[in-house]
Amino acid sequence: MTVAIVGAGPGDPGLVTVRALELVRACEILVYDRLVSLELVAQAVGAARIARESMTQDEINEVLVHHGKRGRNVVRLKGGDPFIFGRGAEEVEALAAAGVEYEVVPGLSTLTAIPGLAGIPLTARGVASQLTVLTGTSGDGRELDYDRLAGTPGTLVIFMGLARLEAIADNLILAGRPVDQPAAVISRLSLPGAERRIGTLGTIAGDARGLESPAVVVIGDVVAHASQLQAVIELAHDER
Amino acid sequence: MTVAIVGAGPGDPGLVTVRALELVRACEILVYDRLVSLELVAQAVGAARIARESMTQDEINEVLVHHGKRGRNVVRLKGGDPFIFGRGAEEVEALAAAGVEYEVVPGLSTLTAIPGLAGIPLTARGVASQLTVLTGTSGDGRELDYDRLAGTPGTLVIFMGLARLEAIADNLILAGRPVDQPAAVISRLSLPGAERRIGTLGTIAGDARGLESPAVVVIGDVVAHASQLQAVIELAHDER
Repeated sequence: MTVAIVGAGPGDPGLVTVRALELVRACEILVYDRLVSLELVAQAVGAARIARESMTQDEINEVLVHHGKRGRNVVRLKGGDPFIFGRGAEEVEALAAAGVEYEVVPGLSTLTAIPGLAGIPLTARGVASQLTVLTGTSGDGRELDYDRLAGTPGTLVIFMGLARLEAIADNLILAGRPVDQPAAVISRLSLPGAERRIGTLGTIAGDARGLESPAVVVIGDVVAHASQLQAVIELAHDER
Repeated sequence: MTVAIVGAGPGDPGLVTVRALELVRACEILVYDRLVSLELVAQAVGAARIARESMTQDEINEVLVHHGKRGRNVVRLKGGDPFIFGRGAEEVEALAAAGVEYEVVPGLSTLTAIPGLAGIPLTARGVASQLTVLTGTSGDGRELDYDRLAGTPGTLVIFMGLARLEAIADNLILAGRPVDQPAAVISRLSLPGAERRIGTLGTIAGDARGLESPAVVVIGDVVAHASQLQAVIELAHDER
């Protein structure tokens, strides 16, 4: 490996993979996202550590290609999983185009951490057998297809939807999704200050007021089964 | 913690979380699934190791509650993530009902490992902005709602669909999904002998012949972008 595109998981340093930790510890250059835990960044002892915050995607690609071509051990550490609404593909394509060897290490996505850490099942026998995942704005910036989403069976999980939650909820109701359908917002899952708010499609925008990003929205009858599970990490004491 | 419900990830021992490994190493009793790597099981030095294979779900619940009540450190190690089409919820409910303390450690789901390890993006700008996840038989054993699935935009990911792949593909085509829509099957992702087969909805059942479970099916235009990424782990040499 010269360049590794690595998922850091949802934030809790215990939820990073063994392989990711090994690569971080051994790297010479670490380029890391804002939401990656500093505890994990600190494991890159002796590495040049570059926070990506002030860089454009093109600049990141350039840094990875530049050092990769020189055979340096580079780790590009991204929050969650690099490819689940991350932009890992763009980095991988830049590396491939430049002929730089790379390795991908998937990370634990916030999506899959929802049931275990926030106590909300995503599917449940007899309640929801299907799960639909999307972002608050469709990938190409267009408005979501609310008519279709209103009729989609099962659970909806919306990433990056907090800022537009009121419009999303209103439009889903207008398109025919029941106003009393259970809905939840989970903020900063697995990070300090994690918080979960539960309401209905009609109340959730108000319920979520004051929550911080990153946040994920869950809409569907599975939310009514949230109490069957116990929210175990960093959540219970924040619960309203 | 007395009982921990722990995700082992998709199989590669490097893709287990740091917290999971720590718990496995410290446990007194380990109850593990068939697809968990033996390398990981071997880390439970000195623990009583119980393969779940011959046990019913009720028997597993009983073992967890029995030892949990006695304050033993128990790890229930499950393939992938315990709650993404796992049955973690049933175990957690049994523990909660018995008043046994527990901890949940999410694991890397096969779902989120698909882009990084099999080289197939699940969403892509301008191609698919939405992802729908389901199992080959709906949760309550009924037939899938093919009419609705045929009209679902974006990518479909089907778990446990290999055995019924011919019927699933035929029914999706009959319901109106294009016969030439790209489709892929990934078998044993991150495990030795991993294999990826790419075709169309019309050919995929034949293309997938001979593949082994566990396997996951991906249907949608993103599959046509598979070559943009490089399938890096255990896949390239198996490619047809």
